[in-house]
Amino acid sequence: MRLRLDGIFLPLVTPFLDDGALDLVSFEANLDSYAGEDLAGCLVLGSTGEAASLEGEEKLTLVRAARRRAGDRILLVGTGLESTGATISLTRRVADLGADAALVLTPHYYKSQMTLDVLRRHFEAVADASPIPVLLYSVPQFTGLPFPTALAASLAGHPKVVGMKESGGDVALLGRIAAAAPPPFAVLCGSAPVLYPALCVGAAGGVLAVACCAPRLVAALYRAFEKGDHPGARRLQGILTPLATAVSIHGIAGLKAAMDLGARRGGSVRAPLLPVAAALREELRPLLERAEAAV
Amino acid sequence: MRLRLDGIFLPLVTPFLDDGALDLVSFEANLDSYAGEDLAGCLVLGSTGEAASLEGEEKLTLVRAARRRAGDRILLVGTGLESTGATISLTRRVADLGADAALVLTPHYYKSQMTLDVLRRHFEAVADASPIPVLLYSVPQFTGLPFPTALAASLAGHPKVVGMKESGGDVALLGRIAAAAPPPFAVLCGSAPVLYPALCVGAAGGVLAVACCAPRLVAALYRAFEKGDHPGARRLQGILTPLATAVSIHGIAGLKAAMDLGARRGGSVRAPLLPVAAALREELRPLLERAEAAV
Amino acid sequence: MRLRLDGIFLPLVTPFLDDGALDLVSFEANLDSYAGEDLAGCLVLGSTGEAASLEGEEKLTLVRAARRRAGDRILLVGTGLESTGATISLTRRVADLGADAALVLTPHYYKSQMTLDVLRRHFEAVADASPIPVLLYSVPQFTGLPFPTALAASLAGHPKVVGMKESGGDVALLGRIAAAAPPPFAVLCGSAPVLYPALCVGAAGGVLAVACCAPRLVAALYRAFEKGDHPGARRLQGILTPLATAVSIHGIAGLKAAMDLGARRGGSVRAPLLPVAAALREELRPLLERAEAAV
Amino acid sequence: MRLRLDGIFLPLVTPFLDDGALDLVSFEANLDSYAGEDLAGCLVLGSTGEAASLEGEEKLTLVRAARRRAGDRILLVGTGLESTGATISLTRRVADLGADAALVLTPHYYKSQMTLDVLRRHFEAVADASPIPVLLYSVPQFTGLPFPTALAASLAGHPKVVGMKESGGDVALLGRIAAAAPPPFAVLCGSAPVLYPALCVGAAGGVLAVACCAPRLVAALYRAFEKGDHPGARRLQGILTPLATAVSIHGIAGLKAAMDLGARRGGSVRAPLLPVAAALREELRPLLERAEAAV
Repeated sequence: MRLRLDGIFLPLVTPFLDDGALDLVSFEANLDSYAGEDLAGCLVLGSTGEAASLEGEEKLTLVRAARRRAGDRILLVGTGLESTGATISLTRRVADLGADAALVLTPHYYKSQMTLDVLRRHFEAVADASPIPVLLYSVPQFTGLPFPTALAASLAGHPKVVGMKESGGDVALLGRIAAAAPPPFAVLCGSAPVLYPALCVGAAGGVLAVACCAPRLVAALYRAFEKGDHPGARRLQGILTPLATAVSIHGIAGLKAAMDLGARRGGSVRAPLLPVAAALREELRPLLERAEAAV
Repeated sequence: MRLRLDGIFLPLVTPFLDDGALDLVSFEANLDSYAGEDLAGCLVLGSTGEAASLEGEEKLTLVRAARRRAGDRILLVGTGLESTGATISLTRRVADLGADAALVLTPHYYKSQMTLDVLRRHFEAVADASPIPVLLYSVPQFTGLPFPTALAASLAGHPKVVGMKESGGDVALLGRIAAAAPPPFAVLCGSAPVLYPALCVGAAGGVLAVACCAPRLVAALYRAFEKGDHPGARRLQGILTPLATAVSIHGIAGLKAAMDLGARRGGSVRAPLLPVAAALREELRPLLERAEAAV
Repeated sequence: MRLRLDGIFLPLVTPFLDDGALDLVSFEANLDSYAGEDLAGCLVLGSTGEAASLEGEEKLTLVRAARRRAGDRILLVGTGLESTGATISLTRRVADLGADAALVLTPHYYKSQMTLDVLRRHFEAVADASPIPVLLYSVPQFTGLPFPTALAASLAGHPKVVGMKESGGDVALLGRIAAAAPPPFAVLCGSAPVLYPALCVGAAGGVLAVACCAPRLVAALYRAFEKGDHPGARRLQGILTPLATAVSIHGIAGLKAAMDLGARRGGSVRAPLLPVAAALREELRPLLERAEAAV
Repeated sequence: MRLRLDGIFLPLVTPFLDDGALDLVSFEANLDSYAGEDLAGCLVLGSTGEAASLEGEEKLTLVRAARRRAGDRILLVGTGLESTGATISLTRRVADLGADAALVLTPHYYKSQMTLDVLRRHFEAVADASPIPVLLYSVPQFTGLPFPTALAASLAGHPKVVGMKESGGDVALLGRIAAAAPPPFAVLCGSAPVLYPALCVGAAGGVLAVACCAPRLVAALYRAFEKGDHPGARRLQGILTPLATAVSIHGIAGLKAAMDLGARRGGSVRAPLLPVAAALREELRPLLERAEAAV
């Protein structure tokens, strides 16, 4: 049965203690806190999960915990590494632990060498070897590499490649890929300020950091769109955008601070990331309150 | 009475003869050919009009001709130059010739000096001195400068600043500006592949090069959106995007070739721009036919 | 007889009165003030001369004045415009007025269309039509376009193309061009913080804004290098770099302020450029004094 | 006793077998092949060593082997990772294994969060905890982040921070850092096409990929400069630049191909990197022969 990737996914944060150690209790508490929300699933080991700063064993621990707590929701796991072989190994490990699909980041360290051909071979090799479906992951603000439309269109023909997360906020690109790779290929929006227009041009849903602190607002926007309520979706986007913008200015530390302001446990970030200053944290409060009042 | 800037505007091309001379006859013939189309107005001396390659007298000749032929449609004229004083002079001249509003490009040669403060003062000085309403013009692919949201929001409070053309295809920026500067401030979309999502987040209309060769398709998309027909608008966007993309790969020469393939007169481009090769020109034909068949 | 382009050239500023009018008296006074300095010549209508903000008649006035005052020094004139035809016209006009060579900027507004072929044809057409020798002008910080090594190498074979000004501070590019286009083709360094290393890899000299306020320091560095005194050249570079950096942070306004602090007349900048704040102006003083003390 | 970092360092490649496994025999054979060359030392786990694609245990294996074979030459080891904690752990491990100094890459995944303050704290924490001296590593073509001059200047005051590798080819930056952080702080040039001008403005030496296939040419250039033979250094730079450019177009695969063409063992690259096509490989041969003939 084909995996359905419609709706809103949470890219889970990884809470740390003040000394930098993994805070698994808070990670699990967060998962429990989302149990009643209208969400399609969650993503572990994404950019928001500080995957770049996690050790191998920590990654597996988080996947196990997420699988235990996620119930029958979809569990996406970020497995993209610089080496094709290492990406395949990690993908197989998390498949064994119950991941439903792997989100595979573009390799990007050797930027000038990442030609269309190199990237295509990489994603094909991973998809060929993966026991579970694969999603492509475009996040040029972190990789420094734009994701070519032609690459997505070509890979969409691979039986294991079921979708893509587009996190650059490029609605034209997202629309082109959605047109070139029709459903069931699922393009997921990874940039909250364009969630509504992304849905308009064919996104199947979203994987949005801000949903970790305001899941109801994001879910409500998705449902408004789904039932054809465009004015409602646009109104909610108008509330979501300033919150998402304010949170993302401070990166993951901003999101964690916003979670701490609510009933959730953002916890510390891992160095070199810095926590958000107390004054800036307070600026998030009215935006969160407005988000809660909106739904 | 406030100028209404809803709907689709044509950024007119400037046809040239093979020797580079202005082809005013073709310019006027094109204007006449649009007379029966469902359009709000046109723009002379925009980027699509090769304004950067026009002499001062040529510019005035084109404005006079456009005013004569435009009837009661709105006539926008591009007047932005590097110097504030020169921009004001040109704005006053075209106002005398009957322009309804001036579209003012960001000065951009001395990029590192174009701070928020410098740009704000520039646009305020132009608006203060202008006898006609002013629209801001963001086109980072040509200027190399992003247009700061805060600048648009601040200038929207000026009584003479009635709107903005956003041509970078940045739907998040367009949405932020539309939210920060509500109607009657008009944000016009200048990037065809995002016309429909731009309208969804608050664009009042569009100023789209591709409309010079496919005015009916663009107008139909706008009308579909206006009456709430989202599936129809999205369908037409799906036809518009590949045409707009194919045309824009070759820049203005591509647009002129597409006009020549239809009943209009694109004419030559001015050097150093090069004409489109015959083989590439033929690739545009099926896309144009599909556009015509769609409406 | 072939034009010799060795040594230091001044890219003259254009002084304006407070109301923005051309201050020809100050322009001429500056020229006279450089009469006794060890310089090869000067450049009028360059980026430092605010050419982008000058009207056509103003440009000719400045060229006439410079020719009168420049004596037998070499007079370079910036003639590059977006249109090939307009560039040729201006080049012919300034040749008539006595310019020794034309400095031709890369056309750059329609960035994505400026292919190697387009640029080559542009420069060739200008060189073919020019009555005087032509220099290529690479200034990516303003044009947003890198200058391809292959383009310079190819154009260096044209009998009218005698050199290039490289203002991006890219010593590897400058060295590659100097290697690909040996003397008498002259590569002139346009970035003061790399003057000494540029000379080391084959630059024939420099066209440096900072030389307008510190001509002796720049000339001394050039002479030290020329006579093989590397430790001396490096020492002077160590004094030049912080001055050039401090001046250039504020763009042309910074250079004009530095000239006003000395015996010269920078005058006002033309809007939208802003004058340098008084406090920042004072920061330039000790750097200027150090430059004077060094030679 | 302070570590002396003058001269040429080899950033060793990591040879792989065709199946992607580590080829330790070839790694050691290469080290032996450099024993008689005029080199200051080598770098293991750098960008050229494909560190981004190596597993933890593989890294330690390579350090042990390099230490065994390096004799009394200086052994630099790349230890920079995204997390401060992980960087410290790896630095301590390689110190235990005999590394003489650690080369610490800028963390860069969360680009917008990498403020001056964040980077300063990261490098200070690593230097504080490191048992061995630390070198900063600027390589913007891979990290997507420029290295701020002010950061280098500030960190140069830390007793453990003994130098910097600047691999962006920015001679102005390198000169500014060399001026701001005088010897014994050592700025090492990481971009072969600017080795000679970098030495002119104060580089203490170089860490250059091309030296792995042409160690004598690079060493000869350094020695020519060191004894004040500027014409000789410039001549050798003219031979080095085309070789380095041709090799680097193909990235690490190009370097490995060039080594295979000589007496050394480049071996395979690890996927997703691709080997160099046979035809391109042949283009390197005459450049290598010219390099050998030059010294």
